[in-house]
Amino acid sequence: MNSNSTSGRRGPKPNSQTKIDLLKAGTAKFHEVGYAASSVKDIVDIAGVPKGSFYNHFNSKEIFGAEAIDYYFNTQLESLTTFFSSMEKAPIEQLKNYFYSRFIQFKNNGYLQGCMLGNLSLEIADHSKLIRDRIAIHLQTWNQLLTSCIKKAQEQQEICNIQSADLLARFVLNSWEGALLRMRAEKKDQPFEDFMNVIFEVILI
Amino acid sequence: MNSNSTSGRRGPKPNSQTKIDLLKAGTAKFHEVGYAASSVKDIVDIAGVPKGSFYNHFNSKEIFGAEAIDYYFNTQLESLTTFFSSMEKAPIEQLKNYFYSRFIQFKNNGYLQGCMLGNLSLEIADHSKLIRDRIAIHLQTWNQLLTSCIKKAQEQQEICNIQSADLLARFVLNSWEGALLRMRAEKKDQPFEDFMNVIFEVILI
Repeated sequence: MNSNSTSGRRGPKPNSQTKIDLLKAGTAKFHEVGYAASSVKDIVDIAGVPKGSFYNHFNSKEIFGAEAIDYYFNTQLESLTTFFSSMEKAPIEQLKNYFYSRFIQFKNNGYLQGCMLGNLSLEIADHSKLIRDRIAIHLQTWNQLLTSCIKKAQEQQEICNIQSADLLARFVLNSWEGALLRMRAEKKDQPFEDFMNVIFEVILI
Repeated sequence: MNSNSTSGRRGPKPNSQTKIDLLKAGTAKFHEVGYAASSVKDIVDIAGVPKGSFYNHFNSKEIFGAEAIDYYFNTQLESLTTFFSSMEKAPIEQLKNYFYSRFIQFKNNGYLQGCMLGNLSLEIADHSKLIRDRIAIHLQTWNQLLTSCIKKAQEQQEICNIQSADLLARFVLNSWEGALLRMRAEKKDQPFEDFMNVIFEVILI
């Protein structure tokens, strides 16, 4: 995101560490309780900065929300890229390991919070084009990593399914978000087991 | 839900029409902006009743939320049951028609709101066991209708996939929620097309 389009204009020159502290605090709060339930006051209190600092960096909560989504996704992206660039593991194994590791992390956290992109898609995307567009862009970036992994599996004849890797990756990603949603509602493993079973025993074969 | 466990105890004998008006107003508001962004004041204002009436019927917003989820699902259940009890259409056609009709309604509404069970799973299920349990029960009821439809398709050899109808139905429902989520983020048809393509050309065959 071009920071010129989102940074505040009032007050002294913003401190970049304060901005990072605010984004970190806001990301954690949005992830924990959602967007509407997180006030600017909550966020500055967690970050330990005065409220005015918030508006030195962000003109509005909505602009902050869009930058928090960038911050959240960028913290995931490095490990995501590392996961899918391993030369040691075959593509399908990479994909299985990726979803399994995400699941274990989620389960160990009490099946809480899930994916912030998914959460904010359902909570706030209807009401903010700015936020919706950021979510859509990051979902596409994530999707591209899955696409290239599935494409490699097809090229290496690990899977015979000849539907386009793009289509398969989009379906896998959306089904993963659906499995997380059901796990949030039921607090049990079955949606993950169903996901792994159908994705890896029926679709990516 | 046993109303004894959730009704308020203060004030005069509650008027059942007022209760329905409140549930209708609350369901619409939750569906439009989410749980946290809907205040009790918003809800009584939409219903056109004094705030005290709310607490004659419901001890808390959380209890109201649980009853609103029941109200929402019960308004869907009749048409859902009708859809899957048609004797004229083959089971797989029933299933396709069902998702297609849900999609058209959603698209005509500007890809807004989606499924309230899904929305509240991601927004509030982490914070309210009462609400989470209501969502889980209704997802299971919905799932059972899909299971019995898929079971019939297997019995009639419309589909050869021999994985259990329960598993397939759970996967289909979760993937549907995931497709709705992606459509909320992207405001386009592709997640629906991907869903129909993979569910009906790869899985239920």
